[in-house]
Amino acid sequence: MSFYTKTYAQRAEAHPSPAAKQLLETIERKKSNLCVSVDVTRKADFLAVIDFVGPFVCLVKTHIDIIEDFDHDLVEQLQVLSKKHDFLIFEDRKFADIGNTVSLQYSSGVHKIASWSHITNAHPVPGPSVITGLASVGKPLGRGLLLLAEMSTKGSLAVGSYTEEAVKMARANKDFVIGFIAQRRMDGVGLADGEEDADFLILTPGVGLDTKGDGMGQQYRTPRQVIVESGCDVIIVGRGIYGNPKALDRDSVRSQAERYMKEGWNAYLERIGKNNQTS
Amino acid sequence: MSFYTKTYAQRAEAHPSPAAKQLLETIERKKSNLCVSVDVTRKADFLAVIDFVGPFVCLVKTHIDIIEDFDHDLVEQLQVLSKKHDFLIFEDRKFADIGNTVSLQYSSGVHKIASWSHITNAHPVPGPSVITGLASVGKPLGRGLLLLAEMSTKGSLAVGSYTEEAVKMARANKDFVIGFIAQRRMDGVGLADGEEDADFLILTPGVGLDTKGDGMGQQYRTPRQVIVESGCDVIIVGRGIYGNPKALDRDSVRSQAERYMKEGWNAYLERIGKNNQTS
Repeated sequence: MSFYTKTYAQRAEAHPSPAAKQLLETIERKKSNLCVSVDVTRKADFLAVIDFVGPFVCLVKTHIDIIEDFDHDLVEQLQVLSKKHDFLIFEDRKFADIGNTVSLQYSSGVHKIASWSHITNAHPVPGPSVITGLASVGKPLGRGLLLLAEMSTKGSLAVGSYTEEAVKMARANKDFVIGFIAQRRMDGVGLADGEEDADFLILTPGVGLDTKGDGMGQQYRTPRQVIVESGCDVIIVGRGIYGNPKALDRDSVRSQAERYMKEGWNAYLERIGKNNQTS
Repeated sequence: MSFYTKTYAQRAEAHPSPAAKQLLETIERKKSNLCVSVDVTRKADFLAVIDFVGPFVCLVKTHIDIIEDFDHDLVEQLQVLSKKHDFLIFEDRKFADIGNTVSLQYSSGVHKIASWSHITNAHPVPGPSVITGLASVGKPLGRGLLLLAEMSTKGSLAVGSYTEEAVKMARANKDFVIGFIAQRRMDGVGLADGEEDADFLILTPGVGLDTKGDGMGQQYRTPRQVIVESGCDVIIVGRGIYGNPKALDRDSVRSQAERYMKEGWNAYLERIGKNNQTS
């Protein structure tokens, strides 16, 4: 039985990583495979969007380094919201440096990402040392790492053998790497003869219901395309849900989040063969 | 006449980018192709190292996001040191996201990198939109961008066609991309028939005189190997110069910086065929 047709609950039960297990259990409990990407630059907007979408998401994706008035209180409030609404936090830092540097970037500085972000990600381009460096900080804290095996932008170089190498690196570090940022399932990619595959989570950005692109190289697909056709596990949606951060409307943000949550969950039910029980 | 044998002064004169011109002129004026990478986590150490090495460098490379007690005053003091010692600043941010995100990461957040860093860098893995996003912020400020065409770590995926695509992306954006982080000259790489090459600066990390590696995947070569054999333009040296940041010794830091500066400059003189005039 492939991971494609297993339920989130079955995968949670069998998963060796505490971070992956936590995420899969949250997805199952909330019946949401929706991750909202909160790309706003003011603390008040950031916390408002998260409080609005909180009930509908399994995961909140942050770019903490774009927030102008970041402070320690923001992290505390984010953690309060994470408990209140039962979601995990994913800092989308895209670490991409040598081991020594990423270990400092992850643990230190103003942002101290490892102290509050359950999940983070890295580009595999530096080679395995990027994983080793991050694992030295994150593993003792029970954190999980996603590798960027593919990107949704035009002309991305994360293709072909690059993607294959990323998956191999993940398999060699499956005590810390819990999955991929990618556009499709990676089961079997770069797998050696007789080698057993691991259950990697696939988180997929570039998901939208109403638009095709952002004019800056980002391309969009629907939740159904992503979850059913491509076998991804979590859909990542940003401005499609909260719109213009300068004109946040609570009801419209909540209803968009709910809409994406339902679309994502129905796609999942269709994938595991239970779509007749829905809606 | 290839860029390999041209002097820094000749290249400065002909270069279309204000940031590249500024760097080449600084190199020529100070007779230093040394960039010191200041990877320390405390503001006081950061400023002390930079003040010590300042007279010997053309460029200071920072990881602003590892500094625990970063504040606005740090940026002001860094800019004062940049004027006092006549060097440029290169924030080694390794941007690697979609265009909209990198433009915010570059301009905004706590660190406001574009406001003080003459040069920054990016991984080409997202495709050309990473350049477009950064250029929208940096070009109006006269900033320059380096692409990571190669990395010095074991198992790096920045090889072969990845490197070629990086160079092609740079040629298509040479009003903003001034060169590469790489291990060798990129002249002619991925060049189409009849296409004219551009003068890209090559900045090379992983340079050390006394050690072979750091145990976390970083590998080292000498200034001569890098400048003469591989045709690179600027050597990047870190802990080899300032040692343990908790036990900074002014005289030893200065003498190491001077040592690397001389080694780098002599290698350059050998490369342009003037090594008989030195020492």
